[in-house]
Amino acid sequence: MTIATNYQISPSLLRSEIRNGKFKKPTSGFAPGHIQTNVAILPKKYAFDFLLFCQRNPKPCPIIEVLEPGKYEAQLTAPNSDIRSDVPLYRVYEHGILTQETNNITNIWTSDLVTFLLGCSFSFESALKNNGINLAHIKNNTNVSMYITNIPTSPAGMFSGPMVVSMRPIPNNKVIRSVQVTSRFPEVHGAPIHIGNPELIGIDDIYAPHFGDAPELNPGDVPVFWACGVTPQAIAMNSKPSIMITHSPGHMFVTDKMDEDYSIL
Amino acid sequence: MTIATNYQISPSLLRSEIRNGKFKKPTSGFAPGHIQTNVAILPKKYAFDFLLFCQRNPKPCPIIEVLEPGKYEAQLTAPNSDIRSDVPLYRVYEHGILTQETNNITNIWTSDLVTFLLGCSFSFESALKNNGINLAHIKNNTNVSMYITNIPTSPAGMFSGPMVVSMRPIPNNKVIRSVQVTSRFPEVHGAPIHIGNPELIGIDDIYAPHFGDAPELNPGDVPVFWACGVTPQAIAMNSKPSIMITHSPGHMFVTDKMDEDYSIL
Repeated sequence: MTIATNYQISPSLLRSEIRNGKFKKPTSGFAPGHIQTNVAILPKKYAFDFLLFCQRNPKPCPIIEVLEPGKYEAQLTAPNSDIRSDVPLYRVYEHGILTQETNNITNIWTSDLVTFLLGCSFSFESALKNNGINLAHIKNNTNVSMYITNIPTSPAGMFSGPMVVSMRPIPNNKVIRSVQVTSRFPEVHGAPIHIGNPELIGIDDIYAPHFGDAPELNPGDVPVFWACGVTPQAIAMNSKPSIMITHSPGHMFVTDKMDEDYSIL
Repeated sequence: MTIATNYQISPSLLRSEIRNGKFKKPTSGFAPGHIQTNVAILPKKYAFDFLLFCQRNPKPCPIIEVLEPGKYEAQLTAPNSDIRSDVPLYRVYEHGILTQETNNITNIWTSDLVTFLLGCSFSFESALKNNGINLAHIKNNTNVSMYITNIPTSPAGMFSGPMVVSMRPIPNNKVIRSVQVTSRFPEVHGAPIHIGNPELIGIDDIYAPHFGDAPELNPGDVPVFWACGVTPQAIAMNSKPSIMITHSPGHMFVTDKMDEDYSIL
């Protein structure tokens, strides 16, 4: 077994493998128990507006760490990391248009860039699993279903738009427990934002998600909706900053922090 | 009974009385159940650093609302308010020096100013009271005891310094309950940061607080320490911005939000 297929790899070794070009795939399941994050990198002129947007919308945009202008080491959550090289695959958007995917952004890095690390649902999915709530998309090795809703986010400066949610089918007798379990993790999306009726939040066809794969809903399953980390990217894309660099979906930044570091009780 | 001595006044009427110069005293106990906030107003050039400082130090600096540059209405938490006139007493600091106290800052307001509303301990004190935990400083009508600790805050840009804590003596058999009760309110300082031994957090003499009044500790009481909303002001003073406007201690901004709006469970 090579390092790159050993799920029990440490976060720092995984980041080193990524940095050296030996690991280029999605990070789901690797370094289990550690916080993985969404990444959004923006020029300083947008940073106050985007930070305020995240503060006003903590459920879809839970901040794990913000690196100050030009800083590329996540000192608080991943000492000795380098955000320019430690994500397996990046996306570069210019004026809202995807212009390239790359394994390394060192050559386009500038001292003006501010990095936002935002919580990811991998953390609360582990908590659900630990409580005996198994998720169909993980069993089926598909991507979770995500939808653009009619729930507006709270605007900030140039940033505004609708909330994106992820949906997980939960057996009827586990729904209450799923609320309790995820409420403990407000910094990785927290409690659901809706249970049961997709139409009430502007979703016409549960089998036609806007992102990810179609869900498997079994008899007795209830659709449960959580605020989704795709929201900040969708919002930023909608607002068309001159440049924004993100991770490519599934290719997350892996921190040294443990999921339990972010539980509030 | 005049309006100004009726504790059951609504937040909007209380703000109106303050705006019209009819109410100029501390707000403790008025409009019970509603969120009162610390106020810090800074020029835009400091706003990203200060917002990031608050994000990195959520226990002492829990953000309730941030008003965008030049905005003086707290649209999210107190519609129709005016932050230039709705605080009973303001303090103006220039380069870290207190230069005036005033009931109205409309004449020094500029379109460049960003307002931060930060959570206040009045909310969790209500929660403690509701759980049968009575507080000596309220019974004695004195100010809570506050101390500068040896616990560093997490710096951000130009802002750094030690955490300020408040201390409440809690009967030994109520200490665990006080942790549970306040853990539910992470946006108004949340769980304690220390229980029991003042020396371990750099407090030499529990009877000589740096702010507020000396405590009354009875036999069987345990000193319990919470992160304090004086921290952001102390930090900003330490960092000497060209101008910062704050509320005067005890003279808070009263929002329409209820304490329970900010409980996480």
